[in-house]
Amino acid sequence: MITAGIIGATGYAGVELFRLLLAHESVKKIAVSSVSFEGQSIDDLYPSLYSLKALHNGQGMAEKCGGLLEDAQTVVEKSDIVFTALPHGLAEQYAEICVKTGKKLIDLSADFRFDQDEAIFAQWYKKNWERPGVHAEAAYGLPELYREKIRAARIVGNPGCYVTSAILALLPALKHGMVDTNTVIVDSKSGVTGAGRNNAMTYNFCECGESISVYAVGSHRHQPEIKHHCDIAAGKDCGIVFTPHLLPMSRGIITDVYAPLSEQFMAKAAGEGILEKIRVCYADFYRDEPFVRVLREGKMPATRNVRYSNYCDIQVFAVLGNKMLQVVSVLDNMVKGAAGQAVQNMNLLASFPETQGLEMIPPAF
Amino acid sequence: MITAGIIGATGYAGVELFRLLLAHESVKKIAVSSVSFEGQSIDDLYPSLYSLKALHNGQGMAEKCGGLLEDAQTVVEKSDIVFTALPHGLAEQYAEICVKTGKKLIDLSADFRFDQDEAIFAQWYKKNWERPGVHAEAAYGLPELYREKIRAARIVGNPGCYVTSAILALLPALKHGMVDTNTVIVDSKSGVTGAGRNNAMTYNFCECGESISVYAVGSHRHQPEIKHHCDIAAGKDCGIVFTPHLLPMSRGIITDVYAPLSEQFMAKAAGEGILEKIRVCYADFYRDEPFVRVLREGKMPATRNVRYSNYCDIQVFAVLGNKMLQVVSVLDNMVKGAAGQAVQNMNLLASFPETQGLEMIPPAF
Amino acid sequence: MITAGIIGATGYAGVELFRLLLAHESVKKIAVSSVSFEGQSIDDLYPSLYSLKALHNGQGMAEKCGGLLEDAQTVVEKSDIVFTALPHGLAEQYAEICVKTGKKLIDLSADFRFDQDEAIFAQWYKKNWERPGVHAEAAYGLPELYREKIRAARIVGNPGCYVTSAILALLPALKHGMVDTNTVIVDSKSGVTGAGRNNAMTYNFCECGESISVYAVGSHRHQPEIKHHCDIAAGKDCGIVFTPHLLPMSRGIITDVYAPLSEQFMAKAAGEGILEKIRVCYADFYRDEPFVRVLREGKMPATRNVRYSNYCDIQVFAVLGNKMLQVVSVLDNMVKGAAGQAVQNMNLLASFPETQGLEMIPPAF
Amino acid sequence: MITAGIIGATGYAGVELFRLLLAHESVKKIAVSSVSFEGQSIDDLYPSLYSLKALHNGQGMAEKCGGLLEDAQTVVEKSDIVFTALPHGLAEQYAEICVKTGKKLIDLSADFRFDQDEAIFAQWYKKNWERPGVHAEAAYGLPELYREKIRAARIVGNPGCYVTSAILALLPALKHGMVDTNTVIVDSKSGVTGAGRNNAMTYNFCECGESISVYAVGSHRHQPEIKHHCDIAAGKDCGIVFTPHLLPMSRGIITDVYAPLSEQFMAKAAGEGILEKIRVCYADFYRDEPFVRVLREGKMPATRNVRYSNYCDIQVFAVLGNKMLQVVSVLDNMVKGAAGQAVQNMNLLASFPETQGLEMIPPAF
Repeated sequence: MITAGIIGATGYAGVELFRLLLAHESVKKIAVSSVSFEGQSIDDLYPSLYSLKALHNGQGMAEKCGGLLEDAQTVVEKSDIVFTALPHGLAEQYAEICVKTGKKLIDLSADFRFDQDEAIFAQWYKKNWERPGVHAEAAYGLPELYREKIRAARIVGNPGCYVTSAILALLPALKHGMVDTNTVIVDSKSGVTGAGRNNAMTYNFCECGESISVYAVGSHRHQPEIKHHCDIAAGKDCGIVFTPHLLPMSRGIITDVYAPLSEQFMAKAAGEGILEKIRVCYADFYRDEPFVRVLREGKMPATRNVRYSNYCDIQVFAVLGNKMLQVVSVLDNMVKGAAGQAVQNMNLLASFPETQGLEMIPPAF
Repeated sequence: MITAGIIGATGYAGVELFRLLLAHESVKKIAVSSVSFEGQSIDDLYPSLYSLKALHNGQGMAEKCGGLLEDAQTVVEKSDIVFTALPHGLAEQYAEICVKTGKKLIDLSADFRFDQDEAIFAQWYKKNWERPGVHAEAAYGLPELYREKIRAARIVGNPGCYVTSAILALLPALKHGMVDTNTVIVDSKSGVTGAGRNNAMTYNFCECGESISVYAVGSHRHQPEIKHHCDIAAGKDCGIVFTPHLLPMSRGIITDVYAPLSEQFMAKAAGEGILEKIRVCYADFYRDEPFVRVLREGKMPATRNVRYSNYCDIQVFAVLGNKMLQVVSVLDNMVKGAAGQAVQNMNLLASFPETQGLEMIPPAF
Repeated sequence: MITAGIIGATGYAGVELFRLLLAHESVKKIAVSSVSFEGQSIDDLYPSLYSLKALHNGQGMAEKCGGLLEDAQTVVEKSDIVFTALPHGLAEQYAEICVKTGKKLIDLSADFRFDQDEAIFAQWYKKNWERPGVHAEAAYGLPELYREKIRAARIVGNPGCYVTSAILALLPALKHGMVDTNTVIVDSKSGVTGAGRNNAMTYNFCECGESISVYAVGSHRHQPEIKHHCDIAAGKDCGIVFTPHLLPMSRGIITDVYAPLSEQFMAKAAGEGILEKIRVCYADFYRDEPFVRVLREGKMPATRNVRYSNYCDIQVFAVLGNKMLQVVSVLDNMVKGAAGQAVQNMNLLASFPETQGLEMIPPAF
Repeated sequence: MITAGIIGATGYAGVELFRLLLAHESVKKIAVSSVSFEGQSIDDLYPSLYSLKALHNGQGMAEKCGGLLEDAQTVVEKSDIVFTALPHGLAEQYAEICVKTGKKLIDLSADFRFDQDEAIFAQWYKKNWERPGVHAEAAYGLPELYREKIRAARIVGNPGCYVTSAILALLPALKHGMVDTNTVIVDSKSGVTGAGRNNAMTYNFCECGESISVYAVGSHRHQPEIKHHCDIAAGKDCGIVFTPHLLPMSRGIITDVYAPLSEQFMAKAAGEGILEKIRVCYADFYRDEPFVRVLREGKMPATRNVRYSNYCDIQVFAVLGNKMLQVVSVLDNMVKGAAGQAVQNMNLLASFPETQGLEMIPPAF
């Protein structure tokens, strides 16, 4: 049993994390902070959390957390594991304290997503590292790719939502040399929660409802993050085109990945059927992963099938006369794409069962 | 630990119930049936249920249920408690078997919602009882009103979704003689799941999206159900006007109730403030109820605050120059309005903790 | 042919008005202003207006308006008829100029909605009149109630969106003494555009999507506006309970009105059937109104049927054992509830055909 | 002035067409048919069309059409130009009659979309031509590609919705040899109206709301249609990967097209900037097209900007280090993607101004 702390608990990722931790049986206490709302109660902002009488045998939310939003310092002091859910560029200071005091930290921003590569971070986030030393303690929190590194780390950089959907779609292909990595197209579509708690008119119901738009073409910060970890997984340079779209729905990402099948894979697959070969590779790769479901043939991914759960569903296709791989993945951007994956990382850091607190079954509607 | 059975598991209430029971720690096994899809697997229809690897320490759905849709007879035989989620008029036969064999049954249709009053049922559902004897074993499954009767019953008639929202809004007022019951207006608005798994064009995205409509004015079958139980609670005849509306959202009901404050209540409240008096009555009445949250002054009910949970949120107002009571209640029609309430009733029937399997925290978005 | 000016053209009502005027054949030129975006082009803010090549035989938007947002003073100078679509309390100054210079003004705020009754305005809007004289020139812009006054006026106070839906639902009943006016309940539900161009988190897609909420119970400023004009129409004091709700859709209002039928009306209707009598009164009353459609028996109002049009659809019911009148009305809050009605008023002021520029057919989806 | 007929007026494309023709000033009369609803009035099915008092100087719908759904034969007889909005494979018979009797026909199904290439049609639609002769009279109804052919034709095959969005995005690139056509990826996303009036559960609000899904990967019938006309435009064989997605909105398609820039184009553009070169090509190509808007640099396409209008908005990008062209197009699938384009084709066939009846300004919300 641990005490968990959330710095930045009133953003969308923060409050989703709070909800998951309230139901997590190995989390005894939760401390929460907010700069904007310090001194208020979290259920004042999010009335869904009011009272919660039915929780913990009638003790409600109070058993784990009074709900009071404190300052970040206090949260760090009280906690065994700290989650930072802050704008980019603010987590290092807390990471340093955690490293010094033997605590662990899971950061939901981009601050620890590029391993030792400060240059990429600086290029895309217009900011240098202030405490370079702490980055040596960090692992990238995609368990399907770096599970053992995460277990051994003190700091975890929780992946971007789009990035999780893209890498999980590509990983078996990259590991098997299945595709030519020069021209990998990643066409993603996300619900509005992806923008976080954001009062721009862009996310007003009247302006994004009943409409789809494209944005940040060629300039989205998840592009270098996808590329960085694909390069590592493939063992070579990948050319990634990444396009995000904004959908008229709250939760969920669907990502279509297109990449030419490699000559060697097509040669190897000759005789047995390329699609079947692809399918077997993917199914084998994810067989023991608790949160990745490779769909049966003929089934089409839909975000509704993973909503409010930590699952990522994947389907594979051979298109363009069997010369191109297409993979479609879906996940809930707030769960596997953010708070759920953070809890999965906490479970690894704390040696809890990896699925603990993440058994949510996606509702049918 | 019990085995639970769901007859009609592929309707919307049925599959929501299945989801809740999969996560219920006192349910060991689940058996499911469907006339339309017998022999298929439930996750074939509802792909969100596919695999569920993360469940039950990695054993997935299989630990509790293989997913195969069997026939109703088989389900009854395997189960300790049977849920019928069928069209109206089909549950009596299973109720009779359960009564004879010492099992218990919770019916989600209207068949057991009118106590011994066959006449009302026959008038509104155009069908007489075929097995009048079993009705003596039945209780109306609104725990806030009939908790002890439910504990002692063999059969539970699970309330209608609108009815739950209306009665919970009215109950303290009726019990305290707070209102003149001759003219009670119940203006309700429901999400589309209220229509069940229904392929009428009315519920097509293009025809109910971005629109609100009124329907069944003066003729909805939940009107006599509201009236029947309000009459009992008030101890006198109630005049209920009930109007349902169809909203462009999946889940949730909001109900506005308007009733003139009674002379005696206004007299009693004189001096201390009518709204304060109303508020105290409501807060006291629901103090120990695990699933009813009377909101703090100034807070406004919204269905998003109870979505995917078993909570019903209530707020009270004094309007028309303090001469009229207005109560607004919100609930998730598929949970407190259907499957969640059915589980709450199961908990009562089986002497499990009443909140078991119902600790879901409504997500913020 | 006139030049029309819009002061406050970048709010939601303002830009909707701009769209309607661009298509209006008696409007030759349009001048637009905005405090926040002065100097920008309106299609920079609303890219739907970009180019509009297909308009006016290929001349596009430019034929009528270059799109440049100017200052208010310039707009007044250029225009024959001025529309003010500003926050409450700012229109009097422009009204005064118009009166002095022989122009006419249609105000979409509440500043001219209470005839000569400054007290009500001051009570609800916390502001006194600064130029009381101009109010003598004003008519309330509900053509169905005050057509001739509007024709003769120099200033028109365009009605509130909820108010339009409520009064059109009540008007025949009030004029015929059909109901007891002491207890009139008006339960309204509106789409999100009703809040205007508003970046509060309340209207963020994630916070109002898939949810309905109630707000401003007993305190919404449209309540005194409904009451003021109902009092006049009925010739006596009306008790109005008004409750607004926020719906997960962009456009549309549905209003349910409930009022006890009067003894004299029930007496008169005895013999022929109360509902039939009500229906005839409503159908007769609105026979010649171009924008009010009393629905055929059995048809239920839905906002989708009036979306993007200037129609208000109405259906009548007798409920509570024929002792209560229920009327349901639907309209598009941005058209008949705002910009469309403003154009209708312009047509009256300028002696254009009343339906000119308002022939929009509501799309089926 | 002509009489227009719609065979299949109660499907979604049919009723949208009816709405546009009601407002078209060169259409004097409209005749409508429906197999399923013959003898009923069209406003019985689509209550938005009820009465329409404001239309045609108060004469309402009746001036042009009584609304009665007749049989197809009668509609053909009454009409100068016939629209067939039927399931695939049923239009040839009406086309033959029109050709024989000197009338013209615009077909909204796929029956006339492949020029003289019966083999492709037969392969994808599982049906041979029954009246091969009439196909010689047909033009493919994409005015931007085949304007003069359409003017000269007797029959027009109105393009598929996805196809229109894809070809308009690709056309300048193909005509300029801008891209390597071997690997053209077309990733499209459509609103639910794209499925037509379809009561499958897939399109139920609860099952497609708040979710995005992919479907028909590698097997959608619009793929061969895109390819057929791209092959012609490019003058060589194109490799088209086409993926459609279903969005939680009613109207609108967004299409992302990705294709490697050709060596010759990159060579030619060297020095001046590739993106600028692309932009100029696109802007020039569509300069005189009334319904294609190439957006200014920095502006991102969104379906809301073209909703309820006949516009197609296009933006171009150079991605993958300036080695790949990305084009994003948006249109309203029911207007430029169906009924609006059909009216545009009617205008060409009848020598009306091409924009007549299509001046709709997309609303801001």
